[in-house]
Amino acid sequence: MKFSPLVDALIQSLQCLPGVGPRSAQRMAFQLLERDRSGGAKLGSALQSAMSDVGHCGSCRTYTEETQCRICANPKRAQSGQLCVVESPADLLAIESAGQFDGRYFVLMGHLSPLDGIGPDEIGLDRLDQMLADGSWQEVILATNPTVEGEATAQYIADMARQHQVAISRIAHGVPVGGELEYVDGTTLALSFSGRQKL
Amino acid sequence: MKFSPLVDALIQSLQCLPGVGPRSAQRMAFQLLERDRSGGAKLGSALQSAMSDVGHCGSCRTYTEETQCRICANPKRAQSGQLCVVESPADLLAIESAGQFDGRYFVLMGHLSPLDGIGPDEIGLDRLDQMLADGSWQEVILATNPTVEGEATAQYIADMARQHQVAISRIAHGVPVGGELEYVDGTTLALSFSGRQKL
Ligand SMILES: [Zn+2]
Ligand SMILES: [Zn+2]
Repeated sequence: MKFSPLVDALIQSLQCLPGVGPRSAQRMAFQLLERDRSGGAKLGSALQSAMSDVGHCGSCRTYTEETQCRICANPKRAQSGQLCVVESPADLLAIESAGQFDGRYFVLMGHLSPLDGIGPDEIGLDRLDQMLADGSWQEVILATNPTVEGEATAQYIADMARQHQVAISRIAHGVPVGGELEYVDGTTLALSFSGRQKL
Repeated sequence: MKFSPLVDALIQSLQCLPGVGPRSAQRMAFQLLERDRSGGAKLGSALQSAMSDVGHCGSCRTYTEETQCRICANPKRAQSGQLCVVESPADLLAIESAGQFDGRYFVLMGHLSPLDGIGPDEIGLDRLDQMLADGSWQEVILATNPTVEGEATAQYIADMARQHQVAISRIAHGVPVGGELEYVDGTTLALSFSGRQKL
């Protein structure tokens, strides 16, 4: 016990945040106590609601506390018949910010990684297969990360999608190989969409 | 609205933490949702308790939810008659970690800064004056930061303390001038205590 039970508990629990060690947890705790108690209390309640209520969209698997996320719930987003497959909600957001794509998404929440026990079912490919089987899709755009795992995952999905009546493409230009899609700027992402190539 | 109301609120409110911008707030939110919901919920409740219940020690002014902090509540800490004046609870902790000092503290929660409207009363010097007047103190050790404001504050307190029957000293060796006391290692801090000089 260094300060008092509540202050110690706060400093300790702040360290569950990525990149926050004991020193910066202490800084954060004192900063909130000193200058922003209402912000800290708001964060506390936001954390509790989100941790208990946020689940996954029943269609695309991204995070939402609703049955369907607002993209899947928007009928306009189904009109193009385009389905963009990404690894994470952050990737989805990066593509949305580029403002180029108006179709729907499928969020894998990861990528194939057999050594870690992450196979097709763990990233929802059984459900993606069912979706593609309903015949309402024109094109599957594979926007997994340009990493070894992301490429392998894209290849696996391409093979799977070929059993359905659907065009298959992979985003191309601009995304630097070995990089993380989430950090690419909007222009580069827009380029990578317009330059996509059929598989 | 980018994700869903709860996820957006979480990302937004994480930005009240010092050094956390939109990008790292998003990372933190996804990391907690994905891998550590129990840690996130714990942090949420720790924040709410601390923000509403943590106040200041009635004696030394450091953070605590109790009437007195555990240092002030420990009668052994009053035996030496030494009172160490620091700017912040983090400074108090740095000195405690050095393990050299077994007296009590007075935490200013800042330093004199007339241009910002922070005068003697805002840093509790009225109460410090009352404490020194009760005659139970042998020595006041001034451990404010070796910055312009910290030195001015130490000087002001030294002048004030001279009206009471008490030795006055300033920590010396080792603390690099212009640096922040909070970041000094224990050995250096221990040196600065043993090498203190009478004012
Ligand atoms: Zn959705
Ligand atoms: Zn105290």
